[in-house]
Amino acid sequence: MTMLLRALALSALIPATAAIGQTDTTAWQIVSGLTTEIGPRLAGSEAEARAREWARAKLKALGFANIAIEPFTIRGYVRGEDRARLTAPYPQPLAVSALGYSGATPAQGIEGELVYFATFAALQAAPAGSLVGKIAFIDHAMKANQDGSGYGPYGAARRQGPALAAQKGAIGIVIRSIGTDGHRNPHTGATSWPATVTPIPAGAVSNPDADQIARIAAQGKPMRLALTLTGETKDNLPSGNVVAELVGRDPALPPILVACHLDSWDLGTGAIDDAAGCAIVTDAALRVQKKGKALRSIRVLWAGSEEIGVFGGAAYAAKHAAEPHALAMESDFGAGRVWATRIKLSAANKPLGDRISASLAEMGIVTLPGVANGGADVGAIIAAQKLAVVDLGQDGTKYFDLHHTPDDTLDKVDPAELEQNVEAWTRVLAIVANEPGPISGE
Amino acid sequence: MTMLLRALALSALIPATAAIGQTDTTAWQIVSGLTTEIGPRLAGSEAEARAREWARAKLKALGFANIAIEPFTIRGYVRGEDRARLTAPYPQPLAVSALGYSGATPAQGIEGELVYFATFAALQAAPAGSLVGKIAFIDHAMKANQDGSGYGPYGAARRQGPALAAQKGAIGIVIRSIGTDGHRNPHTGATSWPATVTPIPAGAVSNPDADQIARIAAQGKPMRLALTLTGETKDNLPSGNVVAELVGRDPALPPILVACHLDSWDLGTGAIDDAAGCAIVTDAALRVQKKGKALRSIRVLWAGSEEIGVFGGAAYAAKHAAEPHALAMESDFGAGRVWATRIKLSAANKPLGDRISASLAEMGIVTLPGVANGGADVGAIIAAQKLAVVDLGQDGTKYFDLHHTPDDTLDKVDPAELEQNVEAWTRVLAIVANEPGPISGE
Repeated sequence: MTMLLRALALSALIPATAAIGQTDTTAWQIVSGLTTEIGPRLAGSEAEARAREWARAKLKALGFANIAIEPFTIRGYVRGEDRARLTAPYPQPLAVSALGYSGATPAQGIEGELVYFATFAALQAAPAGSLVGKIAFIDHAMKANQDGSGYGPYGAARRQGPALAAQKGAIGIVIRSIGTDGHRNPHTGATSWPATVTPIPAGAVSNPDADQIARIAAQGKPMRLALTLTGETKDNLPSGNVVAELVGRDPALPPILVACHLDSWDLGTGAIDDAAGCAIVTDAALRVQKKGKALRSIRVLWAGSEEIGVFGGAAYAAKHAAEPHALAMESDFGAGRVWATRIKLSAANKPLGDRISASLAEMGIVTLPGVANGGADVGAIIAAQKLAVVDLGQDGTKYFDLHHTPDDTLDKVDPAELEQNVEAWTRVLAIVANEPGPISGE
Repeated sequence: MTMLLRALALSALIPATAAIGQTDTTAWQIVSGLTTEIGPRLAGSEAEARAREWARAKLKALGFANIAIEPFTIRGYVRGEDRARLTAPYPQPLAVSALGYSGATPAQGIEGELVYFATFAALQAAPAGSLVGKIAFIDHAMKANQDGSGYGPYGAARRQGPALAAQKGAIGIVIRSIGTDGHRNPHTGATSWPATVTPIPAGAVSNPDADQIARIAAQGKPMRLALTLTGETKDNLPSGNVVAELVGRDPALPPILVACHLDSWDLGTGAIDDAAGCAIVTDAALRVQKKGKALRSIRVLWAGSEEIGVFGGAAYAAKHAAEPHALAMESDFGAGRVWATRIKLSAANKPLGDRISASLAEMGIVTLPGVANGGADVGAIIAAQKLAVVDLGQDGTKYFDLHHTPDDTLDKVDPAELEQNVEAWTRVLAIVANEPGPISGE
């Protein structure tokens, strides 16, 4: 079939695909079931344990083999009370959520001068000792981009900002949510603390609250904040990965590994982050099998504890270090349509990469230059085994409206976009799982 | 100038109007100042008292005369802790806010079977005694309409639902928020309790949480809810109206009364409800005066305690019963553009109404049949004095995404739409405040 004819055939299929793709797919059943029947499933929590059992039962019902829960323990964060209130110059409550691994305030909270920094760089430039007894506030100007490229640089305020403020003497820190929405829903997420730094209370306020702080700061009046964040970091919390396989015609060949993460932040129900990812990779694997058993096994990894520490990815790589893998992929950027791919394959595998690109091109998906990296939960095994990788880049324009917020709920998943993801993944898996020759990343 | 020429002239002005209309207007300064420097200002609270002082200072700075704070006391509601958690079949937290005048739970909350009702009518149809020891849930299907017409019928679940559930034996009630957004921000609002009914704890969950309950109910599994709403109804809380005037050339003529309300629900900062209303009516009055002092005085009423009990409107009507008024208007439906007008004038005043309609028609505003009603805070004085009324109907398509939620914040006000409101109000006030003959509603 020529490209033109295939394109015409595909466009003729679109209405039918959209019609069947609404809510009667396996993908939708997974994202709906996990978010409704478990809901929030914070790493290390009792809910995450229920999610593992839910996953085991679901994967069994779907016909997967070799289903295993692979336990490990983590350093986790248990949320307490989160409250913030401007006490001067204009007393009013602010919407705040603690960040992961935040230090704890006493039950009655702390109170101090609130010092405004327009950017993370401005905090970096603050003199040593200048924040003694004070609370830092970091603003920023992250905007929504299709490729999510703002999260790396602007996320520094959340990842490194708390430790930096502590090193300059701050008794606490709040940041503008690392997010792009305009709702009173703060965005949580993990923070990093060097071993030499004692964590201070660290929270994020919603964007409208950050706007409020910025307006008041612009008036030049001293600000004071009362902050209560009583959550605690806890060691040795139980977590685990769920692994399952669709066994191929030649089980001796290295399998294709497809991953997502089962845990979620606690504020929402983890629909786009990352029930959708588990739904996409799992339904795609099943659809490949429905066309006839693939040559290679497809292994799904529903990782635990991605959100805080990426413990699941490390545990998987350690446990499966001795098993060769062919290629790894992960879906962990929501449920927006796939718009781009990046492919990491050895020079010898170039024809394989070309077939993947050509198939995706029929769906309007472009092949970008640059290195495919797989995703957090497959990062360790990819690095250890120099694996081949295919990234399917999702449209992240709305992702940071929802990511790590109370608003990450099922209603935000568009069934038609979810279906487009499954279709793209099915095309890639059908090609790579039926590749008879060696597959290598380098 | 013909209509066509005037329309062309107006369209030529639009870019300039939009440019000056962004954030340097008195209207923007009022909505920005009140929401930033006071923030939430619940009826009867210390913040509402600060808002009255803020209003007095602002109206003085703007050149108003006869500024008065007119105090009264109210039965108010003081929010406590709001928490809800499904305990069966799928344990998870839900986003909930208490409704005004809710009964209080003990500090440790209550727990009971959650009974799903698809509509208010379904609850009405439930047999007497069928909810003994249980918690009712009312779902509904309110949709966004430009004229806000869904709020009346669907709002019954909030206004009358709690008392109805109590009469059937319920120990508590939660409802789907009376709102049209998809965020985890419950919509609060007042409830009505007949004197014979003891209030039960009553809250609203956000729309995504209500979706969750509806999905679980559809599975047919028994649901249980743990509910903690510790807020309390309190008598004799201090409140008050702020009244000010732009004195006309003939102070003996009955004034034009323009109103808004100063109090807000406590969850947001009351930007669209109703700082915008105060901004619109006040800036419009000032713009009329800038064209040369009007014949009649224009009196602004920034009412207290509208949201709970409409106490401010009653207090105004009682205090000013002996003073004749010419015409009353209110802005209390957000900051969306004015799209329609309704006019209530005596038959003798038909030419006056025609001039208002013609002027508004130049802005694309249609005159609708039906009765103008003014608004909550001017309702009592209109009824008592059979006043003339002009309603300027705002586009409410997005209003119930925000109304009574944490999301009612300054960033939701579009400066260009706010400016269009001020322009429409200025046109109407310039006409009615310069009308020399008698103005009457009947």
